[in-house]
Amino acid sequence: MVRWMGMRAAYYAGNHTLLVDRCVPVEPSEGQVRIRVSHCGICGTDLHLYHGKMDHRVKMPQVIGHESSGVIESIGSSVTEWNPGDRVTVRPLDPCGACPACRAGNGHVCQKLKFIGIDTPGAFQALWTVPAHTLHRVPESLTLAHAALIEPVAVACHDVRLGEVKPGEYAVVLGGGPIGALVAMVARQKGANVLVSEVNPFRIGLLRKLGFEVVNPRETDLVSLVNSQTGDAGADIVFEVSGSDPAAAIMTDLLRVRGRIVLVAVFSKPAPVNLHRFFWRELRLIGARVYEPGDFDEAIALLAANAQPFQDLITGVYPLDDLQRGLSEMDSGADVMKILVDCAS
Amino acid sequence: MVRWMGMRAAYYAGNHTLLVDRCVPVEPSEGQVRIRVSHCGICGTDLHLYHGKMDHRVKMPQVIGHESSGVIESIGSSVTEWNPGDRVTVRPLDPCGACPACRAGNGHVCQKLKFIGIDTPGAFQALWTVPAHTLHRVPESLTLAHAALIEPVAVACHDVRLGEVKPGEYAVVLGGGPIGALVAMVARQKGANVLVSEVNPFRIGLLRKLGFEVVNPRETDLVSLVNSQTGDAGADIVFEVSGSDPAAAIMTDLLRVRGRIVLVAVFSKPAPVNLHRFFWRELRLIGARVYEPGDFDEAIALLAANAQPFQDLITGVYPLDDLQRGLSEMDSGADVMKILVDCAS
Repeated sequence: MVRWMGMRAAYYAGNHTLLVDRCVPVEPSEGQVRIRVSHCGICGTDLHLYHGKMDHRVKMPQVIGHESSGVIESIGSSVTEWNPGDRVTVRPLDPCGACPACRAGNGHVCQKLKFIGIDTPGAFQALWTVPAHTLHRVPESLTLAHAALIEPVAVACHDVRLGEVKPGEYAVVLGGGPIGALVAMVARQKGANVLVSEVNPFRIGLLRKLGFEVVNPRETDLVSLVNSQTGDAGADIVFEVSGSDPAAAIMTDLLRVRGRIVLVAVFSKPAPVNLHRFFWRELRLIGARVYEPGDFDEAIALLAANAQPFQDLITGVYPLDDLQRGLSEMDSGADVMKILVDCAS
Repeated sequence: MVRWMGMRAAYYAGNHTLLVDRCVPVEPSEGQVRIRVSHCGICGTDLHLYHGKMDHRVKMPQVIGHESSGVIESIGSSVTEWNPGDRVTVRPLDPCGACPACRAGNGHVCQKLKFIGIDTPGAFQALWTVPAHTLHRVPESLTLAHAALIEPVAVACHDVRLGEVKPGEYAVVLGGGPIGALVAMVARQKGANVLVSEVNPFRIGLLRKLGFEVVNPRETDLVSLVNSQTGDAGADIVFEVSGSDPAAAIMTDLLRVRGRIVLVAVFSKPAPVNLHRFFWRELRLIGARVYEPGDFDEAIALLAANAQPFQDLITGVYPLDDLQRGLSEMDSGADVMKILVDCAS
């Protein structure tokens, strides 16, 4: 690959192909800003996209990436609250404002939602133009590298908020990847006692180092463990972050009477669920997707306060040219958790 | 069968067998009352039991029945709030008081719950001895025949309460049997616009006569209908009362963003559920079982006020000798909705 040192971007160009090539920066029009991107994390959604699973949504070649941080480079007309030099992150949601969900105040799950970085160009580029309404300010106490964690931490804040986690509650997180780990941290921050279920040895080791009780459900009977630790009551809350059929099968058996499941994972097809247990124990299932503005505010506050060891999840910071390597490592089950891309490199 | 005209009871004696035979009335001991049973409705649970599906719980021969009304005949010691002659119904739940669910105030779904009429003797008998803590007073304005509807109406009150139905909401009830019909009525009472999905022609006709919009999902595309009636938003709430796999498959597609499903039905095995839709639209699933004391109070008030045409669901009142006929009719899909048994006959 010939490296061109001007403005560059990483384009998804179809099944398992990413091209890093020159790009023409887009002038910010009315209500938009242009950001000099600092860092952008690689998300599981990027991996899914890289696998060609979202080709129906993506207009190729498309710049992807949505876990971003950066500094405003220029502003379009009618932008009054932001100035060049402001340190920012982007809440990558562009709702239509007109559908029933938007009219009901649920724009984050707009029925025609444009997700920036999937449906429109994303952050794996040096200069990125986005609507100003997506911006949140990054405080000086937070490095721009760590600020790339704001978006996934906001996912966790949303999940924990919808789950209404209370101090002293017993929480089980099914799946200890990046989102599961962040959910575990935010739930711990709320005062919950957290058990993480994960099969990957590297992730098990990392989470244990961060102070979590972690079990491998292929080696430990999770239901027996939870019952023994809760006086035969069951867990107060389960976060299903794995998207696996075994987790969907077991999640109902882990819970106390009136316990809650927060469904965070993306299931690609219907999964068998023990509906009898929902009836029998009056369980609740709560679907949770992306975040609302307040979740971003909370994530920024938690990161700025260094409330949990969020940054310890970062296992690598790669130059833009190595984005495909990062995706391949995530794919292979290598010893990685959260990989950031330095978009200025 | 030789009829003995003294104290009689209907006993479940194993698969598809009910015996009506003499019984020895049980003296009420401390904290108990003895009721001269007036009427007792036949529940779907009785049918399930009759099919031998609950033999692991039932000590045979067992008097069954739990949708009761009657008059107190005598009281045991330490019973101070009730007197012979009081008109009553029984909330047929006997929680242990000590398990984690009971200690958390959820005795109605006690982890060791004794359901009176399944785990202990029920109401299909002339004289029935029960704990006084299970009693609710039947007002004079309510006949004892109609008072046998209190228990199933309380189920509906519980379901609608947990679903937090609000005036003007669009509700879909999947399954228009007795419980579905009562859920539809209580939801309508709360101001909801109710659509009922049912396949049985007799029940479709009866519910239409009672003012409901009813569709047969084998003839009508339910999702298209709901979307067209809600401006492409989807229903606010779905009550799943059918226990069928097609309903479990479709329930998620009927709902608006952040819509709720109240799961009322008993599923005998895990069913495939579209978990992706829970995530995508941030849906909620709420398991609902039996009732709490306040649900009984509400059911009594609604019945006493004749707030909905509850009694129009009664399609027959049979003598105790004909209990098995009633069960067989329910089994066969005959033109029946709610059948009461006159336990004094």
